[in-house]
Amino acid sequence: MDDVYVIGVGITKFGARSNSSVKDLVAEAVTDALLDAQLDKSAVEAAFFSNAAQGALEGQHAIRGQIALRAMGFSGLPVTNVENACASGSTAFHLAQNSIRAGAADIALAVGAEKMVVGDKRALLSVFDGGWDVHEPERNLEYLATLAADPDAPKNEGKQSIFVEVLAALARRHMNTFGTTVEQIAAVAAKNHTHSQFNAMAQFQKPFSVEEVLAARQVASPLTVPMCSPISDGAAAAILCSGRMLRKLGASRSVLVRASILTGSVDRQAGDYEKQIGRLAALKAYEKSGVDPKEVAVAEVHDASAFGEIAQSENLGFFAYGEGAAAAERGETTVGGRIPINPSGGMVSRGHPLGATGIAQIHELVTQLRGEAGQRQVEGAKIAVQENGGGFIGFDEASCVVSVLERPAEGRAA
Amino acid sequence: MDDVYVIGVGITKFGARSNSSVKDLVAEAVTDALLDAQLDKSAVEAAFFSNAAQGALEGQHAIRGQIALRAMGFSGLPVTNVENACASGSTAFHLAQNSIRAGAADIALAVGAEKMVVGDKRALLSVFDGGWDVHEPERNLEYLATLAADPDAPKNEGKQSIFVEVLAALARRHMNTFGTTVEQIAAVAAKNHTHSQFNAMAQFQKPFSVEEVLAARQVASPLTVPMCSPISDGAAAAILCSGRMLRKLGASRSVLVRASILTGSVDRQAGDYEKQIGRLAALKAYEKSGVDPKEVAVAEVHDASAFGEIAQSENLGFFAYGEGAAAAERGETTVGGRIPINPSGGMVSRGHPLGATGIAQIHELVTQLRGEAGQRQVEGAKIAVQENGGGFIGFDEASCVVSVLERPAEGRAA
Repeated sequence: MDDVYVIGVGITKFGARSNSSVKDLVAEAVTDALLDAQLDKSAVEAAFFSNAAQGALEGQHAIRGQIALRAMGFSGLPVTNVENACASGSTAFHLAQNSIRAGAADIALAVGAEKMVVGDKRALLSVFDGGWDVHEPERNLEYLATLAADPDAPKNEGKQSIFVEVLAALARRHMNTFGTTVEQIAAVAAKNHTHSQFNAMAQFQKPFSVEEVLAARQVASPLTVPMCSPISDGAAAAILCSGRMLRKLGASRSVLVRASILTGSVDRQAGDYEKQIGRLAALKAYEKSGVDPKEVAVAEVHDASAFGEIAQSENLGFFAYGEGAAAAERGETTVGGRIPINPSGGMVSRGHPLGATGIAQIHELVTQLRGEAGQRQVEGAKIAVQENGGGFIGFDEASCVVSVLERPAEGRAA
Repeated sequence: MDDVYVIGVGITKFGARSNSSVKDLVAEAVTDALLDAQLDKSAVEAAFFSNAAQGALEGQHAIRGQIALRAMGFSGLPVTNVENACASGSTAFHLAQNSIRAGAADIALAVGAEKMVVGDKRALLSVFDGGWDVHEPERNLEYLATLAADPDAPKNEGKQSIFVEVLAALARRHMNTFGTTVEQIAAVAAKNHTHSQFNAMAQFQKPFSVEEVLAARQVASPLTVPMCSPISDGAAAAILCSGRMLRKLGASRSVLVRASILTGSVDRQAGDYEKQIGRLAALKAYEKSGVDPKEVAVAEVHDASAFGEIAQSENLGFFAYGEGAAAAERGETTVGGRIPINPSGGMVSRGHPLGATGIAQIHELVTQLRGEAGQRQVEGAKIAVQENGGGFIGFDEASCVVSVLERPAEGRAA
């Protein structure tokens, strides 16, 4: 089977983009990616478009990708609209690389875009809370109480997204089990906000100290505002290419996709960390790619809350269960440390426009593997891992994608 | 590259299923398909779930497939939610066969489900009309007026889905250009309603005469009620398998997927029939499969209105442009005729639960190629074609899938 490469990436500034429509954001990111790949639109043979909120917020329940891509001049392009909650973007990426491996296309586009505030509507309750079974609110809350494993059982009182309660419950359980501290979670948030001061496309460029993170307003115990991903608008795009076509194009700066795995969650006990979906996806991705976690130089992981990054750093095998928080506090996941995580600023600081996030992670890792990340560069990075989860069923995200990328040896790809 | 086979299909009764949820419908169709394939759930390695309305009608904006499949006991299953308006189902099928060709799975499930009436909410305006650009209603209406090419320019007065106006405008243009008559369109509707009297899973089992079709209430000139696809609930599922795995399983009754093409529409003049998306998809599918339209024994095509079937019978090369209507009137597309179309009853009579339709078409063709279609059997059918379009941009559906299926020679597959 032919290899798949990323040959172009594009991204918009994330944040409040009140004057930009989904169409505008898509055009920005895709134009950027085409320029990066030095390709004309006509070269693209398949597109996978990810978005979660445009139905709820704009009444655009169907063909969102076709509308946005046609508006910027694509013609005759096969488009598939994909949704997997917060993992929508990397699901689009996963399908794009599948389409190339299947021989359905030599050049494929993955693009994700999200407007999370449209007029007076916000995606907070309408969409995030559509990310679990809306017909089983009580059963969901029972899961949540079990997960939290403390008397402070969460209740969704309609004030904010239930998802913040899920993230807080996950954090509390880890604290109870492993002795993870709120200071350690704050250290991850501070690190990510510090990383993103060097990322011009990130939503925030304001470094935080651990003390500042702890002193900020609490959203749901133990999470404060700077520990949580914000409401964001934005888009990101990646152009993928078969090895066969890459040899024709002679494109340099290409990045090899060694594996991209999508998986689903399993029934498990709340304390059975080894069966978490992130772990299952990671094991499959390492098996498929033949990569050992020790070889990974840099990672972008799903920090919907700063705690999430700790959980995923353990699932991905960078640290043993219960050791991720202390390692982060010691600076091992900071740029310059042993295994830098979320050099982009991650979701808590780069922002989290749902459908765009997974592809934004790919954007960052491709930039890192090319050695083009400027002041946030992880020196000499050769192998990178991306992890992106979405939705909730029971104790886990409903879907999780883990991708393994590699900088090819000089001259190999072209 | 390995071959892909359909080894199991399942379907629910289509129609008003007010006591069944999306979960219930999915469980019915998937259980049916697993039984047909003689497989346990645990054998399925990837799933593609298609639905268009559950966000609008139930607030389930995300992870619809994960919720429905987990509820019926799947665990650890990678699920991708797919939406391409009325072509959602065949897009899921297309992706399922891609995932096998890509080596991501040996056994993949494509399942589509739709509830189009939930409580007092109907999918009519909310979803159908989310099937084109909701931000450009005036531009859409201009396209529509150009398409109709008559002074009876359509206006969406909020009484019914704008989609009926689109279908009517397409019919009127064909009538003006080629002399197609309302009696010929009625003949197609009567034929499909007559076919479905032998399909127990169809929404309707009431044969119509041409006169009865013509005498029915007009929805939008020239379309009367029996010429239009109804509001339907229902689900359909297909299980696909690699050739490698099929040889292990030794499954009989398998059907080869010779090609499944997804394409997008192009800018064109209203009268440029050769550039219609259905034609473009058909040409690609014939090229990929190496099949000539003359070899096709049976087809399921997108008859959102009975006129649509005429248009698609021409796009698929069964008849020259302008000759499809007369051929249908002569009975050439009736079971027993030269090239039977929509033996299931098609969308106008089997029903049209949006996300399920494309897979229901596959269900029918697999049943036909296996020789298991009972009183609606097309004798000796060896090669079958499916066509399914969805959404509107400009003069065309936004997406179209054409698949070519083949009954393998005895003993070949197993």
